[in-house]
Amino acid sequence: MDHSIIIQHTQKFIQLTAEEQAYFLSLLQEKRLNRKAFFLRENEVCNSVAFVLSGCLRAYSVDEQGFEHILQFAPQNWWITDMFSVLSGKPAHLNIDALEDSEILILGKKEQEQLYLDVPKFERYFRILIENSTVASRQRVLDNLELSAKERYAKFCSTYPTLINTIPQKQVAAYIGVTPEFLSKMKAEYLREL
Amino acid sequence: MDHSIIIQHTQKFIQLTAEEQAYFLSLLQEKRLNRKAFFLRENEVCNSVAFVLSGCLRAYSVDEQGFEHILQFAPQNWWITDMFSVLSGKPAHLNIDALEDSEILILGKKEQEQLYLDVPKFERYFRILIENSTVASRQRVLDNLELSAKERYAKFCSTYPTLINTIPQKQVAAYIGVTPEFLSKMKAEYLREL
Repeated sequence: MDHSIIIQHTQKFIQLTAEEQAYFLSLLQEKRLNRKAFFLRENEVCNSVAFVLSGCLRAYSVDEQGFEHILQFAPQNWWITDMFSVLSGKPAHLNIDALEDSEILILGKKEQEQLYLDVPKFERYFRILIENSTVASRQRVLDNLELSAKERYAKFCSTYPTLINTIPQKQVAAYIGVTPEFLSKMKAEYLREL
Repeated sequence: MDHSIIIQHTQKFIQLTAEEQAYFLSLLQEKRLNRKAFFLRENEVCNSVAFVLSGCLRAYSVDEQGFEHILQFAPQNWWITDMFSVLSGKPAHLNIDALEDSEILILGKKEQEQLYLDVPKFERYFRILIENSTVASRQRVLDNLELSAKERYAKFCSTYPTLINTIPQKQVAAYIGVTPEFLSKMKAEYLREL
């Protein structure tokens, strides 16, 4: 696996010495996930965060009627976890699985706490990532209150121009909050209007 | 104003010396906001975060039809800002005003950056707060996808037992994403079922 990807990602936010890079990498555990394999299942306690080196993961919940609702896609260079479960130690609400064959690096909760103590710069790294993630989640709350399904689809296309072509339409529908049939209809209208 | 409130809040997460406490307080600026007064207006660039000592603030956007959508309430002990604007330096999407006469402490962006350098423990403090805020925002995204308006109302009541009795119903409706009339009807049904 190509570990330089995660080092390059940290370098966007913090400067690490060669020793600190090596120490960080020593805390990470490699894992290959085949398509549809799980990183986390609902009701398990989640004790780690995953960084995607290749492929794409998704985090979703399943409602009482069995419908999937997608909280997040994580393509290359994204971290993904059930943060509620990691922070509280309670069972996860989310399932996290691979949409395609994927390679991930896993950082355990204890290792992450140790990392903060040993290399405090990582407090900064994860704080900045979480700030960005919070901005995105909060904007999505407002979008759900303000925008029509069609506007949310248009926004998804402009925000994730790469994902829109690689992720199955059914997954996009479960993210936007519409049925796949309704998405097809919207997509046709959207493309006609472009 | 009673500054011990914010010091007590930091002590839930980090241990500060008397000197560090004094330095932190020296960076904060006091402000009184009368009811309906603004901390931030849409399209202004937001350069600070506010901590609520007393009263209650709210962050909301206004859609093209003029309807308000509430992202966050901030009663005592909460921080509030337009994080998108603070991080990006771009104009705010949000309005932030006082629902009642309020006292706030303001931490400027530059002062916050300086604080991180001078007292790195604050990286931890704000990281933990942002993690909690992210968990809440992400859960709200899922709630909006999964739950009916009535279930969202029930959840609001159990999550914010104090707010539900002090905030005007119109504001609760703008948070849940329904009209005030629909909220009245739901509330009557909800109370009958208790």
